[in-house]
Parts: sequence; structure tokens; C-alpha cells
Amino acid sequence: VFEVNWDAVAAEKGGYDHFMIKEIYEQPKALRDTILGRVNGDGVNLSEIKIDLELLKKTNKVTIVACGTAYHAGLVGKYVIEDLARVPVEVDIASEFRYRDPIVDENTLVIVVSQSGETADTLAAMREARSKGAKVLAVTNVVGSTISREADSVLYTWAGPEIAVASTKAYTTQLAAMNCIALALAQVRGTQSAETIKAIADAIREIPAQVEKVLAQAETVKAISEQIKTWDDVFFIGRSVDYAVALEGSLKLKEISYIHAEAYAAGELKHGTLALITDNIPVIALATQEQVFDKTISNIQEVKARDAFVIAVAQEGNREIAKFAEYVLTIPRTHPALAPILAVVPLQMLSYYTAVARECDVDKPRNLAKSVTVE
Amino acid sequence: VFEVNWDAVAAEKGGYDHFMIKEIYEQPKALRDTILGRVNGDGVNLSEIKIDLELLKKTNKVTIVACGTAYHAGLVGKYVIEDLARVPVEVDIASEFRYRDPIVDENTLVIVVSQSGETADTLAAMREARSKGAKVLAVTNVVGSTISREADSVLYTWAGPEIAVASTKAYTTQLAAMNCIALALAQVRGTQSAETIKAIADAIREIPAQVEKVLAQAETVKAISEQIKTWDDVFFIGRSVDYAVALEGSLKLKEISYIHAEAYAAGELKHGTLALITDNIPVIALATQEQVFDKTISNIQEVKARDAFVIAVAQEGNREIAKFAEYVLTIPRTHPALAPILAVVPLQMLSYYTAVARECDVDKPRNLAKSVTVE
Repeated sequence: VFEVNWDAVAAEKGGYDHFMIKEIYEQPKALRDTILGRVNGDGVNLSEIKIDLELLKKTNKVTIVACGTAYHAGLVGKYVIEDLARVPVEVDIASEFRYRDPIVDENTLVIVVSQSGETADTLAAMREARSKGAKVLAVTNVVGSTISREADSVLYTWAGPEIAVASTKAYTTQLAAMNCIALALAQVRGTQSAETIKAIADAIREIPAQVEKVLAQAETVKAISEQIKTWDDVFFIGRSVDYAVALEGSLKLKEISYIHAEAYAAGELKHGTLALITDNIPVIALATQEQVFDKTISNIQEVKARDAFVIAVAQEGNREIAKFAEYVLTIPRTHPALAPILAVVPLQMLSYYTAVARECDVDKPRNLAKSVTVE
Repeated sequence: VFEVNWDAVAAEKGGYDHFMIKEIYEQPKALRDTILGRVNGDGVNLSEIKIDLELLKKTNKVTIVACGTAYHAGLVGKYVIEDLARVPVEVDIASEFRYRDPIVDENTLVIVVSQSGETADTLAAMREARSKGAKVLAVTNVVGSTISREADSVLYTWAGPEIAVASTKAYTTQLAAMNCIALALAQVRGTQSAETIKAIADAIREIPAQVEKVLAQAETVKAISEQIKTWDDVFFIGRSVDYAVALEGSLKLKEISYIHAEAYAAGELKHGTLALITDNIPVIALATQEQVFDKTISNIQEVKARDAFVIAVAQEGNREIAKFAEYVLTIPRTHPALAPILAVVPLQMLSYYTAVARECDVDKPRNLAKSVTVE
């Protein structure tokens, strides 16, 4: 019986060693399925969102509530919604939001994000927000989940079942959903020109194929993981949405390789963390955002001056970055708000290969459950 | 010449081994000076704030911008202003705010926090906010600093000169200032009863003497630092304002002892970081907030179940906590919003004694400057 069971699991892995790496490679499809029928040549069609158009037009505050990886998707959501729809966005950790007597009312659009749709704190936060009159839009991956049933409306990510505890394809589809919501709000509120909206919609539709290009860098990632695996401390830095990606990259590494990885807004380094940077300490620097590229380079120089081992993630064709980094992982050129979907992929792979090299139980890391359905 | 200079420095330390510990012990006086003339028997008098009363009444958003330790004061500020004055507060890292095309306008009250009043990113953020029409209230410790000169109004912390790179008395006086601002806004906006305001004002006036009581626990703190000094990784957890204190406590330890300390919202542990908790890993748990005490205890039990070495900070008279912690540091009972001023003090001392035990250069940690006047 044991062997049959094992075979069944192996069969589900479809030739991959672990669910996590299978799910990493499923991202182009997951993203295509999530975008399909929503993003077209002119913009985004989210008529499936069953929330009064007037609220979307007049809302003066969006509050995004989530836990863990989904919270990191929310941080990108803040950036892109504020940028495109010019409405203030607050992002809150669900276990904080629910106990803080949050300031939300019937004019607030609350977006909750949960892969499983069963995350206990997120569910409680949603109920708290609804009890105060707010309308709740849920971004979730599971049809029929408690959150999907109780929300005022649902935008499903179509990532398919995610088995590995460390979330990968659910996260990138959450990022795609955040971009769709931002575009939809921009359309409703008239905050962007038709050309800008079309350009971003076109960029979104290119993302699945671009993720495939990023996945092709697996050999470089494996080489880097041979360096990383010997370290017990790793730092991630970035500015703007790259900071959100840094947080997610550090969480992945933590969860499955048990390396103490920590992410910092690059501009905050000098306010303390720089004291920890010495010979050969790995620093993974996200530098995908052109408008803060020079500032990020100057932060990279700061850690280089302390002999850090720098691995950078940057856009294709960037020649400057190679001067400061031991390794450069590249992503195809895209709209800045979409770069996180591409930039997180090499970090997912880096966590995976590092955890494998450290002989960790990749799909079922110690102490963690897939869905945190208790508080 | 060298010796004379050295003697002068020693004299300035007033019998203490380092400026940092001298400044830690100066906190009761710094707090008294900051409160004096502002907090009285009926509430707070901030007529010194030269910002149109109408803006304070009608503002629908407060944005707090700062870096490093001052940012952690801002996180407490968000909690207390939202709680007392019921106006939404966003807290942003200055190096992020200035480049994000932030949503602020003439109805936004922007509060910038900087000990030196010269922090480059905070200054640039202030200019960005003012260029968009926002009014800026600066909380700073240095009269005549650039930020104090350019802000629309200034609320000085009267901490006196802070020499050690790791901020202590500037931070606690910033917390006092945040509480004064929250009370002032609550008074102007009529969001709290006269009794509540009086009760908090009374509680603020007790704080300096309560800090003295906390300082009397130095011997316990020293004993704990003997345990901590051998570790390279330490975690801090807390909920609500305790999370902000956890962030500040972890930054202190990082800055001067070079231990990789990291703070987590306690409710987020299960979403990843719990994977790093194993035998004897030190976890410093802040548990000063009664309304989330039970939830925090259940997080402490989670780390105890993985054999963490737990050090707790809790209110005097709490008997429950001792069941779960190796050591308990206590703070006198106060209003929840004021607890951070007391709770951070043992963490400051813990960083100090740990750094001394590790023979680090306490007052001048490697790689760091006192005021970050460059980007």
C-alpha cells in the first residue's frame, strides 16, 4: 500500500522531484489562465467583480489585508493601485488589522488575499471589515472556500492546486490579479489615458512568455545556490516594488532552506542593518526599477564596500549592474509594476535549489502548514 | 594632546562606560523635559504647533515619514493617533515615500520624525510633501536643524544631545511626542471624552518615574545578555504596538552587537519564520498589551513547542507569562499606548550589555554614522 501511494504522489509530480519546482514551472500556464478573458487589447474587463461601480469610483481608501506571501502581494498591490488609480491604499497584516479597531467604513474597498481562502486571520479580518460596512473583494485560488463564500465579490486566481507549503504560482497570480484590479480602478476612475491602459494591458499579456524566459536561467540559479547554501544569513534589498519582492524572496529562503534571510528597504540599510554586512555575506539586490536604479546602485556599492557577495536581479540589457555584482539574474523588460512577477521567479528557484542542496524537506518544511486555518 | 582629549570624553560620559548607557539612564529626565509644560492635569497643550486648527480638525489623513529608529516611533504614532483621534495614518519609510509619487495634498497632515533634523531622505520627503501642498509638522531633537527650519511647525523632543549612534533617549521622547500629538488631535477633533483624555494625560506624567523603575532591572538584563551573547540569531515578536517595540529592539541589537536580530508580527510566525525556530534559539516576546495578550501567549507557546529560549516583557503582576518564559522583564502598568516607552527600555539595556559582553564598539558601531545626512 505504501508503494502504491508513493507512486501516486510521484505521478502527480509529473517527473519533477518536488511539487515546489513543478509549481514554479507551472507559472506561465497559471498566469495565462488568470489573465485569460480578463485582459484584452484595450484594457481589463472585470465585470465579474460584483461591487457597486459607484463605490469603485468614489472610494477614498483601499485597504488590503492578508498574511505571509499574500501580504507581500498586497504590498505590490498598494504600489500599483496608488500609481494607476491614485487612491490611497493601506496594506495590513491580517493578525494586526483584526485587533486594531481599524478605520474602515462603507466607503472603503477592502481587498483580502488568501490562496486557500481559509486563512483564519484573514477570514476574521474580512468579517471585521464587513461588520463596519466595508465592501470586501477577495482574491483567492479556491472556489467554494469560506472566504470566497463570504466576500462581497471574488476575483479568482486560476493557479490550480498548490501542494508545496512554500507558495509560488499562487503568489505570481496574486500579483497579476493586483495589476488587473489596479487597471480596472484606473479605468473606472478615469485616472489614466486609454494609451497608458492599453500599454499596460499589452504588457500583462506578455508576462507568461516572459516568465518562461526567466525559468530558462535555472543553471545560473543552481550555481548561485551552491554559494548560498553554506551561509546561515542572507540579506535581500530593494526599493519600491523591489522591496516587496525582496520580502517575498527572503520568506521563501527562510521557509524551506532554514537560512536566516531578511529583507530591507535598501534606503534603510544605513540606519542599522549595514552593521551586519561583512566579508562575503550574501546580499541579493533587486534592481529592476529604473526610476530608483541609481539609488539602488549606490546602496549596492555600500554593501560592496563591506565586501558583501552581491547577487543582483536586473532588467535585460543593463550593463551597469554587472560592475557591482558577482552574479546577475535578468528579467525581460516590462512595465515597472509588472516586474515583480518576473523578478520573484529566480528567487523562488534560488530558494528551491538551495533547500535541495541543504537536503531540506522542500515541500513540507518543518513547523509549517500549507493553510494556516488556526490563529 | 590625545590624553587630554580622552579625559574630556570620559568626563562627558559622567562616570558611565559609554555614552549609550549614560543616555539610557538619562531617559527619565529627557521624558520629563519633553512632557513639561505640554501635558497638564486636563490634557495636552500644544499651542506651540503653528498649524491651522482647521486642518487638524478636518484632515482625513496623517502621513508619518521617517527612517530607522524614528520610523519605529512612527509605527507607534500610527497606532495611537488612529486609536485616539480616529483619523487614518500611513507610516512610510522616507527613502520609499520620496520616490513613490505619494498621495498627499493640502488636506494631509504630514509628520516627519528625525532626531538630528538633518536626515537626508526625511528632508527630501518633507520637501516632496510640501511641494504637494501638505502641511508638515516636524518632530526633532535639534533646534535650528534644516528640518526644523523648513517645516511648517516643530514639536521638539527635549532629549538633549545624543552622542551614541544607537538612539535611545531620542526614541522614547519621540514616542512621548507621538502620544502628545495624538492627544492634541483627539482634543481638537472631539473624538475622546474629557475623562479619557485626562486619564491618558495623567498616565503620561507618570512615565518618567516608571522608566526609573524599569531601569532598576539592570541586573536581570545583564544575566540575560550572558545568554544572548553566544547567539548569532535572535527573534523578537509582538502584536500591536508591541510589534513596533519588537522592531526597535531588534534594530538596537543588530546595530551594536552585530547579532542578526529580526522582529516579526507574532501572528505572522506561522506564515514562515516559525521554520527557523529550533532548540534554544532566543525569542524575545513582547506581551504588554492586554487586548491581545491571549493571542500573544499562544504564539509564545508555538515557539516554546520548538524549544525556543523565551524572554518575555510583560506588565507587573502578570502571573501567566512566567509559565512560558525563561526570564520575564516587567514594566509598570500604564495606558496601552504608552507601554512602548517602558517596554523598549529593557531591550535597550539588553542590546547594550550584550554588545559589551561581545566586546563591540558600543558607541560607534562599524559601518554606521549618527546622522545619515547622505542618501
